[in-house]
Amino acid sequence: MKKVINAPERVVEEMCRGMELAHPGLLRLIPEHNVLVRADAPVQNKVALVSGGGSGHEPTHGGYVGPGMLDAACAGSVFTSPTPDQMLEATKAVDGGDGVFYVVKNYTGDVLNFEMAGELAEDEGIQTDYVVTNDDVAVEDSTFTSGRRGIAGTIFVHKIAGGAADDGKDLAGVKEIAERVNSNVRSMGMALTSCIPPESGEPIFEIGDDEMEIGMGIHGEPGIERKKIEPADEIVDELLQKVLGDTVDFTQGDVAVMVNGLGGTPLMELYIAYAHVSDVLEREGVDVYKMAYVGEYMTSLEMAGFSVTLLKLDEDMKRYLEAPCDVAAGRPF
Amino acid sequence: MKKVINAPERVVEEMCRGMELAHPGLLRLIPEHNVLVRADAPVQNKVALVSGGGSGHEPTHGGYVGPGMLDAACAGSVFTSPTPDQMLEATKAVDGGDGVFYVVKNYTGDVLNFEMAGELAEDEGIQTDYVVTNDDVAVEDSTFTSGRRGIAGTIFVHKIAGGAADDGKDLAGVKEIAERVNSNVRSMGMALTSCIPPESGEPIFEIGDDEMEIGMGIHGEPGIERKKIEPADEIVDELLQKVLGDTVDFTQGDVAVMVNGLGGTPLMELYIAYAHVSDVLEREGVDVYKMAYVGEYMTSLEMAGFSVTLLKLDEDMKRYLEAPCDVAAGRPF
Repeated sequence: MKKVINAPERVVEEMCRGMELAHPGLLRLIPEHNVLVRADAPVQNKVALVSGGGSGHEPTHGGYVGPGMLDAACAGSVFTSPTPDQMLEATKAVDGGDGVFYVVKNYTGDVLNFEMAGELAEDEGIQTDYVVTNDDVAVEDSTFTSGRRGIAGTIFVHKIAGGAADDGKDLAGVKEIAERVNSNVRSMGMALTSCIPPESGEPIFEIGDDEMEIGMGIHGEPGIERKKIEPADEIVDELLQKVLGDTVDFTQGDVAVMVNGLGGTPLMELYIAYAHVSDVLEREGVDVYKMAYVGEYMTSLEMAGFSVTLLKLDEDMKRYLEAPCDVAAGRPF
Repeated sequence: MKKVINAPERVVEEMCRGMELAHPGLLRLIPEHNVLVRADAPVQNKVALVSGGGSGHEPTHGGYVGPGMLDAACAGSVFTSPTPDQMLEATKAVDGGDGVFYVVKNYTGDVLNFEMAGELAEDEGIQTDYVVTNDDVAVEDSTFTSGRRGIAGTIFVHKIAGGAADDGKDLAGVKEIAERVNSNVRSMGMALTSCIPPESGEPIFEIGDDEMEIGMGIHGEPGIERKKIEPADEIVDELLQKVLGDTVDFTQGDVAVMVNGLGGTPLMELYIAYAHVSDVLEREGVDVYKMAYVGEYMTSLEMAGFSVTLLKLDEDMKRYLEAPCDVAAGRPF
C-alpha cells in the first residue's frame, strides 16, 4: 500500500486537521467529531446546509463547505457513514435559527443516520429536513443502497441548494429546489482500477489488467458490465447512452455537464473524455450550459475512472449555480 | 496500460480540443499547433504571457490561461518540449503590441526552444523576453536539465507575473518580478509510483512496492535517495529540511505555501501532509500567508507523490497573488 499517511486509523482526523489549517478563515474543525464547519457559523437568517458521508471522496464533502454552499460537512471513516452523533454536532454548530437541511447521498447507512440525527436535533428544538440524492443510473439497489446510488450529481445539489439558502428560501423552499435538482440530474461512472482504503490496505475489488467496469460505484459496488478496456469515445458512448436514455429529457433547455475524475485518472484523460461528451451531446441536440465542469469533484481515493453527470437546468437553478460561493474545492488562486 | 484515451498518438490534440470545448469564452485553440490562448487574445496595452512545456503535467499550463495569468500555453507531446514553431504561433496570437514574456521551466529542450522562438518573434517585430524557473532544490543538473529543475513553484510565477502584466508593467518590469519570484521560491517533491506515458505504455522508472524516492522530478528524473516508504510526517520533514535549508530565509515575512499532488495521490493525503507542513513551519518560525495551496497544480500524469513549495512574499507579490484571475485550473463553480 503506497500512501502518504502516518497511520491508517488516523487518516480522517489528520485530513480534517489539515483542511482546517490550510483554510483559516474559511473552515473550522469540531475536532473530536471530524466535522468541518464554516468559520463564521452559525450564520443567522438563513437555512444551514449540512452534508457528509464516508471519507475517501475528497473534495466531497469538506471541500464544499463555505459561503454559498455547505455550512458543515461530517467526515465518516473511509467509505463509512458518519454517525448520528457527528451529524448532531454539525447541526447544532450551524443552526442559525432557520433550521438545518441535510444533503444525503443514497447509501443505507447515511440515510438512516441522517434521519436519526434529524430526530435528535428536533428533540433539541432545531428544525431539520433532508433530500436523498440518487443520480446514478447504473443500477437499482446495490451493495450499500436500496434504489439508486447518489454520486457526483450531489455536488450540483450542494451548489444550487446553497444558493437558494443564501437567497433566503426557507427550509421547505430549500428542500423543494434540492429535490428538483435531484429529479433532473443523472450520472454514470466507470472504473479502470480499484482504490485501496488505508484501513484494510487491500483493493476493494479485483480487476484484470485489461479490464474495466461500466457503472461501477464510488465504493467499488458492482456496475453493469465487466469488459475489456475500450477507447475513450466508446466508453463515453456507453455512459451517455444510459444517462440520456433515462427519464429526463435533456434535449429541452440548457444542461450542466460534469466529467468527474475518480482520483487516479489524469486531467488529460478527463478532457479527452469531455471532447467526445461534447460531440455526442451536440449530435443528440443537448445544449451544454456555459462551461463544463471537468475535474475531481467526488473521488474514490486513487481509483482510476470517471463519471459523467447531466443536469437539466431551469432558471432558478441557473441563478443559484452561478451565485457566488467560496469553498476550498478546486481553489486555485 | 489503463487509460481513458483513444489513441496514444492523439492524446495531446484531443486533450486540447476538450479544454477548448469545456471552456468556451475562456480558451481558444490554435488547432494545428496545440496552443491554447485566451479567447479574447490579443489583449491590447499589456505584456502577454506565454508558457508551455511537455504535456502530462495538467493543469499545467493550459489550465492557467485566462485573464490575470497566462495569455497562451503551448502543449508539447507528453514530457517533451513544444517546438519553437508552436511557441511562435502562440507569440503571434497573443502579442498586443507591448511584447511577449515567456515563463520557461528549466529543462534544456524548453529553454532552447523558447530562446529560438524569441529570436523568430523578434524577426517578426515582436519584442520578447523570458524567465527560466528553477525552484526544485533536490538536485543540481538532471536528466533533462542543466542546473536546477523548474517545478510547481512556476505556478506562482504565472500568477504574480500575470498580475504584474495586468497592472501595466512593461516587459522589463514583468521580467523583474518574475525573476524576483523565482529567486524566492523553493520546492521539493517525492514519488511513490511511476506514471505511464501513453506513447510508450511503460512506466518511466521501476520502484519497489515498499519504496519511495525523495527528490524525484516530474518526469521521473532521479532524486536524492531511494528508500523504504516512511510515515507522511517524516517525508514532510525531509522535504522541508532541504527547502528551508536552502538559500532563502523563510523566517522573515510572509510565505505562500503549496502542497502539490503529482496526480495519483488522493486529496486526503495531501491534506494529511499539509497538517505536518503547517506544524513544522510554525515550529521553525515561518508565517504562512493566508490560505495554503493544497491540490493538483503541476502533475506527472498518474504518478503518486507530492511536492512542497515555499515562496517568500513581498508586498508586490502579495498584491499580484491576490489580484483577480479567471482560469480553468481548479475551477469549481
